[in-house]
Amino acid sequence: MINDMMTSSAVTLDDIFNPGSVAIVGVSPQNWMTFAAFAIYSLKEAGFPAIYPVNPKYTEAYGLPCYPSVSAIPGRVDHVMVCVPAERSLDILDDCAGKGVQSVHFFTAGFSESGEKKRIELERSMLQKARAGGFRIIGPNCTGLYVPRAHLTTATRLPMEPGGIAFLSQSGGHSQDMPLHAGARGLRFSKVISYGNALDIDECELLEYFTGDPETKIIAAYIEGVRDGSRFRSVLEKAARVKPVVVYKGGTTDAGLRTAMSHTASMTSSVKVFQAICRQVNTIQVGDIQEMIDVLVALSFATPYPAGRGIAVLGVGGGPSVEAGDHMDKVGLQLTALSGEAQAELKKFLPNDGGIFTNPLDATNLVFPDVIYQTMKAVGRSPSIDIMMYHMGFHPVTRWGEGRFANDFFLKPAAEAMQKAGREMHKPVILALNPASDAAGTDEQLKVQSGFVEAGLPVFHSIEKAGLAMARVEAWWRRFNRA
Amino acid sequence: MINDMMTSSAVTLDDIFNPGSVAIVGVSPQNWMTFAAFAIYSLKEAGFPAIYPVNPKYTEAYGLPCYPSVSAIPGRVDHVMVCVPAERSLDILDDCAGKGVQSVHFFTAGFSESGEKKRIELERSMLQKARAGGFRIIGPNCTGLYVPRAHLTTATRLPMEPGGIAFLSQSGGHSQDMPLHAGARGLRFSKVISYGNALDIDECELLEYFTGDPETKIIAAYIEGVRDGSRFRSVLEKAARVKPVVVYKGGTTDAGLRTAMSHTASMTSSVKVFQAICRQVNTIQVGDIQEMIDVLVALSFATPYPAGRGIAVLGVGGGPSVEAGDHMDKVGLQLTALSGEAQAELKKFLPNDGGIFTNPLDATNLVFPDVIYQTMKAVGRSPSIDIMMYHMGFHPVTRWGEGRFANDFFLKPAAEAMQKAGREMHKPVILALNPASDAAGTDEQLKVQSGFVEAGLPVFHSIEKAGLAMARVEAWWRRFNRA
Repeated sequence: MINDMMTSSAVTLDDIFNPGSVAIVGVSPQNWMTFAAFAIYSLKEAGFPAIYPVNPKYTEAYGLPCYPSVSAIPGRVDHVMVCVPAERSLDILDDCAGKGVQSVHFFTAGFSESGEKKRIELERSMLQKARAGGFRIIGPNCTGLYVPRAHLTTATRLPMEPGGIAFLSQSGGHSQDMPLHAGARGLRFSKVISYGNALDIDECELLEYFTGDPETKIIAAYIEGVRDGSRFRSVLEKAARVKPVVVYKGGTTDAGLRTAMSHTASMTSSVKVFQAICRQVNTIQVGDIQEMIDVLVALSFATPYPAGRGIAVLGVGGGPSVEAGDHMDKVGLQLTALSGEAQAELKKFLPNDGGIFTNPLDATNLVFPDVIYQTMKAVGRSPSIDIMMYHMGFHPVTRWGEGRFANDFFLKPAAEAMQKAGREMHKPVILALNPASDAAGTDEQLKVQSGFVEAGLPVFHSIEKAGLAMARVEAWWRRFNRA
Repeated sequence: MINDMMTSSAVTLDDIFNPGSVAIVGVSPQNWMTFAAFAIYSLKEAGFPAIYPVNPKYTEAYGLPCYPSVSAIPGRVDHVMVCVPAERSLDILDDCAGKGVQSVHFFTAGFSESGEKKRIELERSMLQKARAGGFRIIGPNCTGLYVPRAHLTTATRLPMEPGGIAFLSQSGGHSQDMPLHAGARGLRFSKVISYGNALDIDECELLEYFTGDPETKIIAAYIEGVRDGSRFRSVLEKAARVKPVVVYKGGTTDAGLRTAMSHTASMTSSVKVFQAICRQVNTIQVGDIQEMIDVLVALSFATPYPAGRGIAVLGVGGGPSVEAGDHMDKVGLQLTALSGEAQAELKKFLPNDGGIFTNPLDATNLVFPDVIYQTMKAVGRSPSIDIMMYHMGFHPVTRWGEGRFANDFFLKPAAEAMQKAGREMHKPVILALNPASDAAGTDEQLKVQSGFVEAGLPVFHSIEKAGLAMARVEAWWRRFNRA
């Protein structure tokens, strides 16, 4: 799309990700339940410097001066967010052209994804206007930009400290859910963009940009479809050669395909080709947003990356141990046997009543930080062990005595014990916190999770999820080093 | 095990599940962090009438009189819980024999699961003593009984209102985690037993008992291994003929098998045979505890059971809709097309801006109870739709304006709207609440979840999990009716 139509433009993606001022077209002060209102509320909360509501019917909106048009705004306007019906798009773009804006983002939907000829033609005209006006279009049919460093967001509660993950997402919901959920696991973002129908800025241009972006250490992408397969392959290959790239392809089944088509007008007819490309160039493919977050957690915090597939699983409880056995096998990790030496060492401080001196290792005193440390050291000495996992459930029994885990006697020493063992053994240590879903235990669970997250540990929500993420990272890392 | 050794005994499982008094052997008032202390604390909290701590070193423990032995307790003792080292088991059983107890439950581990010949022989001697004394053994190496109606539990915070689900579990952890997590989803239990090494009371006897138990409507089982395959097949078949039976087999991979062996000394060499039996007699097989809870939620609340595999998925958001498309295909449900009539009906009240008038159905006003009701009615009229799912995420945008969902304007009317539509269409309605994992939204999520759970709706934690549970129930129900 870009290649055949783009005229030279002075506006770079760097400019677009760092606007100094934003106009929101289509505010309606009577109605808080609109994207425009959410955007203004979010920008204010994030401390964005220059916010200009636009609606000819009002002179004030949400405590800010409201302007009749974009061109009527005094001073520079870099970025425009549009929340008016599709029919009015061309007028808005004319208004923007006179003002010298960099980018126009359309929340508005109802374009090519409707399948209607008229709407597809409307999109083409919009693109022509953007070319003529020297600005770029984001979307339409998306939630736009989230750039912590620039205080730019269209959603509240996302973490506002910058980090090293870039996320390009064809879905607006995913583009906001992902950083929200990931934020609670310690992940932070350089730039996130929801690009919807990809009328102008598309996945290829974004992948290229993030490949060269020094703020971006890891690239994540939710893609429903691509228009130019060979260009996609080429930019993806270049990206995957220098950074970890995590790809979630939406629309991989017949029903998913049909839905993606009407969601963002994506032509997703060649799922197998898409997946083969992702595999060949060594990206990490995931099946949903939670899995994407798990892989990003592993990439960000489970360092050094594993040198092989051997995993030691430690914790209290026979049930979880059996589960770990089943799951590790399934995800392709290996519960390699502990050496005789390691076993002899363990018998010195682990009880023999119902404990399992195999791998997974189950012992009732594996809740004491010093025992966790000693055990990881003993186990980690075994050359067949590449990864060490500690699992911890919120059982009704162990949760008795509120605050047992969420305190200075356990939380900090346990985090330190695991990190110290990992450092000394030069092996990644990961943590599976099996969450309970009842209201009673939630406070303590969240405290325990944030305690471990703040300490910098990779935290997962089940033994299986932890194993799957590590298996994916191990496979990627092996091929990344070979290349 | 039972068949070849059991002498006639007057004690029934009904007696064992309804003890009037409990002795706890091995209390240590100096140490709260023991199973004995947890048990006493839990029994007191549950209002159990007669609790007798036993330890010759003390005359009082946890505010209760403490006795030197079981036989020294004045009055009747029905049930004994043992928390002393394995070496002392035979002495304890001698003590119990004189007192005419019904059942002795061993928290204590370190028996046959250790693989040591001496310990295997010790178990045999224990069984002989039980036979001679006319009482039964639970375990060893387990957490015993949880019977809400009898105020009997060894864990705190489990729901204490009785219900219709029986759960037999070889794992102690699962036997407590399951009712805890399931409790938050509205599930309640008739009888739960953790039976560990199955020295005396085993899965076959329990399955037979629950088949005939009028308090039990649904049977759930976590089994690592069985000793008598042909008896197991026969009792399982009888159970599955009259009640839904949900089976989670622990130890299904090489690593899992090895672990199960050392967890409860289970001989699990014939996984495929086990699974084939479960399939042939039409039980519902699940892969973990969360899946078990999902299936139990579907069996308990997603009524009437679905007449086929057609599912309509409704909610806000293109991303989740694409995900729904992929997942429903994968789990074996069908996103059947909506009829022209239904589409025409829907266009009357659903907006056309970015909404998808296919199945999944995505429209921005699908957050209003009356729109949810009208949409379900329109969609449900289609004969190809057997199940109606509403999905709801906790996105940062929609969560803006705290309390938007957890209030009387949304929660109760939305629950009523869905239930009314389900009743009028004679089709099950299910709810996927995609939880956010950040601390900020948790309170509201839990309020929304409990609101829907209290209204009696089947609540799942993702679109995929909801679909998988319904697919399993549909397949079971089809065969159940054919039989």
